[in-house]
Amino acid sequence: MIIENIHKNKPLIHCMTNYVSMNDCANIVLACGAAPIMAEDINEVEQITNICDGLVINIGMLSERKLKAMIAAGKKANECKHPVVFDPVGAGASDFRKKAASTLINEVKFDVIRGNVSEIKAISSGTQTLMGVEANVSDKVNETNIEETIAFVKAFSKKTGAIIALTGGIDIVADSNVAYIIRNGHPMMSKVTGTGCQLSALTAAFICANPDKKLEATAMAVSAMGIAGEIAYSRLENLDGNATYRNYIIDAIYNMDDKQLNTMKKLEV
Amino acid sequence: MIIENIHKNKPLIHCMTNYVSMNDCANIVLACGAAPIMAEDINEVEQITNICDGLVINIGMLSERKLKAMIAAGKKANECKHPVVFDPVGAGASDFRKKAASTLINEVKFDVIRGNVSEIKAISSGTQTLMGVEANVSDKVNETNIEETIAFVKAFSKKTGAIIALTGGIDIVADSNVAYIIRNGHPMMSKVTGTGCQLSALTAAFICANPDKKLEATAMAVSAMGIAGEIAYSRLENLDGNATYRNYIIDAIYNMDDKQLNTMKKLEV
Amino acid sequence: MIIENIHKNKPLIHCMTNYVSMNDCANIVLACGAAPIMAEDINEVEQITNICDGLVINIGMLSERKLKAMIAAGKKANECKHPVVFDPVGAGASDFRKKAASTLINEVKFDVIRGNVSEIKAISSGTQTLMGVEANVSDKVNETNIEETIAFVKAFSKKTGAIIALTGGIDIVADSNVAYIIRNGHPMMSKVTGTGCQLSALTAAFICANPDKKLEATAMAVSAMGIAGEIAYSRLENLDGNATYRNYIIDAIYNMDDKQLNTMKKLEV
Repeated sequence: MIIENIHKNKPLIHCMTNYVSMNDCANIVLACGAAPIMAEDINEVEQITNICDGLVINIGMLSERKLKAMIAAGKKANECKHPVVFDPVGAGASDFRKKAASTLINEVKFDVIRGNVSEIKAISSGTQTLMGVEANVSDKVNETNIEETIAFVKAFSKKTGAIIALTGGIDIVADSNVAYIIRNGHPMMSKVTGTGCQLSALTAAFICANPDKKLEATAMAVSAMGIAGEIAYSRLENLDGNATYRNYIIDAIYNMDDKQLNTMKKLEV
Repeated sequence: MIIENIHKNKPLIHCMTNYVSMNDCANIVLACGAAPIMAEDINEVEQITNICDGLVINIGMLSERKLKAMIAAGKKANECKHPVVFDPVGAGASDFRKKAASTLINEVKFDVIRGNVSEIKAISSGTQTLMGVEANVSDKVNETNIEETIAFVKAFSKKTGAIIALTGGIDIVADSNVAYIIRNGHPMMSKVTGTGCQLSALTAAFICANPDKKLEATAMAVSAMGIAGEIAYSRLENLDGNATYRNYIIDAIYNMDDKQLNTMKKLEV
Repeated sequence: MIIENIHKNKPLIHCMTNYVSMNDCANIVLACGAAPIMAEDINEVEQITNICDGLVINIGMLSERKLKAMIAAGKKANECKHPVVFDPVGAGASDFRKKAASTLINEVKFDVIRGNVSEIKAISSGTQTLMGVEANVSDKVNETNIEETIAFVKAFSKKTGAIIALTGGIDIVADSNVAYIIRNGHPMMSKVTGTGCQLSALTAAFICANPDKKLEATAMAVSAMGIAGEIAYSRLENLDGNATYRNYIIDAIYNMDDKQLNTMKKLEV
């Protein structure tokens, strides 16, 4: 149903994202049945947002020019009542990104904020614990700290009004009331650049096509990405590595339907 | 002969293109036997254009800075009598792109303008019918409107002095006198980001190496891309999707020779 | 030992590089066991450099803004005593890039400068012999001019204080005293965009994890890339081309260990 809705509605997603994973983001948006458009210039972002169905703001490789355009596009998307997904890539890695994340959260109403635990912590508490764009090891979600993490995520959701998708080994998707725990995925996904960025773009497609159940759609997007990582891993042969794996992840999203998603999802409320 | 000439002359193509498909554009240019160089800064574009054999201007992800550099490079290429290909990506999606396209067409003499039907209509008539970077459905070329479309393309070619390559389900390549209809390709190509951008870069390589028959070379480039889509599709296995398909398209261009092109082309004048 | 050290130390590499090969650079850095972060804005590059272990400066698609940020990041890396690799992409293709290369060499102390023979010549002698980003044919290193080339490389290393990695058919890695000659690789690597950029990023990972033997680590990085090209080539089937080859090169780095590197390396001092 959720994936079928994407293929039926073919939402057009305005992706304001970094140049590292931009091509993969476009291809994964196409893979799931939606369509991407990329624009980042202040002269056109509002108009582009206006003709789209949803917006992704990803602050990897941020610049001042892009930040201004992101704020303008975000406000426009809010005005149009289009879903907006925020990916605070490397938010703790520099003061510039941390301030930018904070500005964006103040100026734009986000439907979903998706990041790894270090990124989410950086934008919520102001601590700077990030090692690059990877989650700080000490911050990883595991069985012993999961209850504590869920409480933190729910509180942050309450504060921002956004669904929070905290992804890593175990993924948590929650609003202020309900939390999903998702155990799909494969460790090798961390060896492919931009799987987080791709998931943020995928999430936008999922919620744009399923506006009445955004929390569930976000959880399903996270689960779908994890399942894609599992399927892709199972296809790898002896000499294959992270480049082939990257392609197989997108391929798996291309071939995924609701039946597969529902069968393979490891998701508990 | 046409592909052989690329391998023999190894034209160097200056690609001013968007960041989404830039890597794929570089690899498809290499695949066909030419060589790419990417530069977009006003401080060097004229000099880079000068040492190249041809230029591609693609306005995806446009900015004011890039537009200025594109105009400078385009004028320089005209001065050097190098072929210039224009790809008006998403020309109807914003006023900024539409004006930019119009400025570029006024300031630069293009040898080929390649776009989908919505893009070509947007830059010719000023209508804004574009849904993102995909062709507007109501504008698709089909058997019933093909004569009308050819007349439109020929008229637009007469107005601009450029060969027009209007690509989609059925492709039309025409100057003011002669039109080629090309029926190669596969619908799955629309599931790979930047196949249009790649074709524009490929076209530049084809016409640079075949300056005496630019119309035929353009038609052959369009046909070659379509054939690559067909070959790539025939290689796909059960679990493959649009990412593997993307690679196989470029692979097919890498392995294509004139014999294969001439055997598989579905091209009528 | 050398590759094992990368997996053990997981150095974080700040890549300031061009948009064509940025995604491949990130994936090859991940493939070898290190982690990448990309940032290029003057507002954050120093802080990003500070939290990283090494820096790569690649002037493909240079702009004035990026040049300023590169100088700032380079100085910061020097201050932090982090290894810095310089890739003077297309240094001879425009006065802008040549001047930028010269400015960077004056302002930043580089540990390694990696380029093809035309690029290295352009930044050393000021001659402009470059054909795009490919090595000028007349400049290719071969058996007859190899002694002369080694002498040139050693002299340039003495002048700059950097290890020079001159790559092409035959690769030379040398400081002012010792030269390695490396005969790994495959001609088809020149059909994949950005293999040089990828090697520069890989080199940064190798030397960051092996700070006590930077010359050997650089030679091993060059050899590893060549071996990856050989392994990738041996995997190709009939219909595969340069896109599949691109993926297989990164896959081969992903699967490479010290045993394979030491067995397959064709390296003489």
